[in-house]
Amino acid sequence: MKKYIVVQKYGGSSVANIERIKAVARRIVATKNNYNHVVVVVSALGDTTDDLEAMAYQLSKSPSEREMDMLMSTGEQISCALLAMAVKACGHEAISFTGPQVGIKTDKRHTRARIETISGRRIRKAIADNKIVIVAGYQGVTSENEITTLGRGGSDLTAVALAHALRAKVCEIYTDVQGIYTTDPRIVPQAKKIKAITFEEMLEMAALGAQVMQARSIEVAKKYNIPMHVRSSFSKEEGTMIVKKDDKMEEVSVRGITCNKSEAKITIRSVPDRTGIAATIFTEISKMDVSVDMIVQNVSHTKHTDISFTVSKADLPRALRAAKAVAQKINAGEVLFDKKIARISIVGSGMRSHHGIAARMFQTLAENKINIDMISTSEISISCIISQRYAEKAVRCLHQRFELEA
Amino acid sequence: MKKYIVVQKYGGSSVANIERIKAVARRIVATKNNYNHVVVVVSALGDTTDDLEAMAYQLSKSPSEREMDMLMSTGEQISCALLAMAVKACGHEAISFTGPQVGIKTDKRHTRARIETISGRRIRKAIADNKIVIVAGYQGVTSENEITTLGRGGSDLTAVALAHALRAKVCEIYTDVQGIYTTDPRIVPQAKKIKAITFEEMLEMAALGAQVMQARSIEVAKKYNIPMHVRSSFSKEEGTMIVKKDDKMEEVSVRGITCNKSEAKITIRSVPDRTGIAATIFTEISKMDVSVDMIVQNVSHTKHTDISFTVSKADLPRALRAAKAVAQKINAGEVLFDKKIARISIVGSGMRSHHGIAARMFQTLAENKINIDMISTSEISISCIISQRYAEKAVRCLHQRFELEA
Repeated sequence: MKKYIVVQKYGGSSVANIERIKAVARRIVATKNNYNHVVVVVSALGDTTDDLEAMAYQLSKSPSEREMDMLMSTGEQISCALLAMAVKACGHEAISFTGPQVGIKTDKRHTRARIETISGRRIRKAIADNKIVIVAGYQGVTSENEITTLGRGGSDLTAVALAHALRAKVCEIYTDVQGIYTTDPRIVPQAKKIKAITFEEMLEMAALGAQVMQARSIEVAKKYNIPMHVRSSFSKEEGTMIVKKDDKMEEVSVRGITCNKSEAKITIRSVPDRTGIAATIFTEISKMDVSVDMIVQNVSHTKHTDISFTVSKADLPRALRAAKAVAQKINAGEVLFDKKIARISIVGSGMRSHHGIAARMFQTLAENKINIDMISTSEISISCIISQRYAEKAVRCLHQRFELEA
Repeated sequence: MKKYIVVQKYGGSSVANIERIKAVARRIVATKNNYNHVVVVVSALGDTTDDLEAMAYQLSKSPSEREMDMLMSTGEQISCALLAMAVKACGHEAISFTGPQVGIKTDKRHTRARIETISGRRIRKAIADNKIVIVAGYQGVTSENEITTLGRGGSDLTAVALAHALRAKVCEIYTDVQGIYTTDPRIVPQAKKIKAITFEEMLEMAALGAQVMQARSIEVAKKYNIPMHVRSSFSKEEGTMIVKKDDKMEEVSVRGITCNKSEAKITIRSVPDRTGIAATIFTEISKMDVSVDMIVQNVSHTKHTDISFTVSKADLPRALRAAKAVAQKINAGEVLFDKKIARISIVGSGMRSHHGIAARMFQTLAENKINIDMISTSEISISCIISQRYAEKAVRCLHQRFELEA
């Protein structure tokens, strides 16, 4: 019977204490005994990352990024060594490796490096020796032997990149939730675990505020068509498969609903309606290193128009300064802002073939007396900016309207 | 003005918390500003090593030595990154390196590796760039890119080996005591800090129970003639220089007194007095992986003799089993043991030229009604085994008799 390679990634909460490490070790050995080769990627234990970061900021207001990488990469090295010990204590041979040891080569951008190549030679050798391999997530090494880290979601990225390099059958992402839900279960208790979702739907949901997965690792999985399985390390239930769209997949118009309260809205009033004016505005704003999300410009019936856009709340002060400066320069009117907004989005690749989804969304909000401030659409999503106070209500009524309940 | 390289090693207690790390950083920068290049070797913060070890033993009764090295080496990586941040926060350029990054190549003996070569290329480059270099102590890497640790006293060893590789002027060992004392100040409050001591005296004192320094690093320092300066990280006072013997050094017959209570004594009675009998006994005992320290066999006036020897208390059960087995085999008498012994030693290279030192030691003990159980001498030391209850008294009266008081 041919053995497949399974890559499993365990997040920090899955290995937060000795008992959980032991439970994860048993799970790994069970997978291995079920006719698989297992390569495990592990994050730092529980709060290690926060503790290390806190020490760094007690010593320096702006610690060097190179030294931060030296420091932070130890968290995953600790957890991979401990997990290897735990697996061995279960009676199976295991070996741990740091990112540098398995040849995860990155560029030189400390604290947010990108993987360039993976050798994987040592992993293949260990697999050939029938060992369970435990790799420290989130880290790599430059061509000059400098230690780097991959930034947020880095361990997921390590797992997906290894799954690709090793031609793994699946990349399992173990976390503290059961999978991807139709919406946040804290808002809608009837939210349902999604059995399967396409890469592009998952990317859209991540971009629009779903917290479970970072977009970076999904992009890589999509590029190389690596099936991902997001599931809980505390249960044996199947989680959510993230896969390439295929015919067998259940066709629904709306896969999930997201809610994002981290943005603020800026409006520039009475912008002279002439060619190139939008380019002028957003060039000035991007110079302030602000990334703009949704942009809405209405068709104007006069010589002037209003332009609205959203930015992350953290960027608001800088974005406002830039907007005011450019408004003066182009002789526009006043600049307004609103921090109390929420972006509610419905996502589903079925929208391409189903008509009337947008109308149904707007109608549902209207029936519930929720005013829509801005609208934006992509091929597989529709987003509305509404007042933050109606955010939960909007999610609940849309979840019901699109029949997503369990 | 030519700049010299100073290697400084800071132990775990010197960097036990944020405030101490900051104080050490200021000290390093002060040394650098005093026309030196500074290369720092640092141990793991305070209790990190103990904490990591405790986790490992919760997961496995006998964790793999390779995985222990993966785990334990993180402690020094954390402290070197934090110390580099602290130095930078003091306004001086600094860079941290792991043992592998500076090319500390070792053999493959995990948890007790020996340094084979040091490249030091990256350190020289950083020094040329006028940076303060911080190196993680206690660790190295094999030719197969496996992480190793150097065992007890490993960071001192890293410091001395780097001092040699970089042709440093001095290797400063910062600790939580003021230097090497004539004897343990907890026993004799009048114990005096020794200004200078020879490598061989220090080696003898370490072997006979002085706690401050491990023998391994002193052996390397002696081999390459690297002056060591043992001093406190909490004070600016000079500590103790460990150097090659030279004419300028104050000539004393006794440099220091040590007391070691970690051994037990075994006596095999009525051993048949024939050629090769001692070889038979100690071959059997060494097969049990017991290392024997002092051995005394009296001249026999009958056909039988008594043989006594000391072993570490931890080895006593195994040593006793071996001794009883061999006693039966060679038709010797009963096997006795005593755990309540102490070994009191006087050390000084002046003994070579001064006569009557041994007589004076025995006389002093006799005057104080302390019975001597066993005697052993080396070229520069004399040791007596006495009852443990008189250990402190013996140290005090010898300290006074040889005029070592402050």
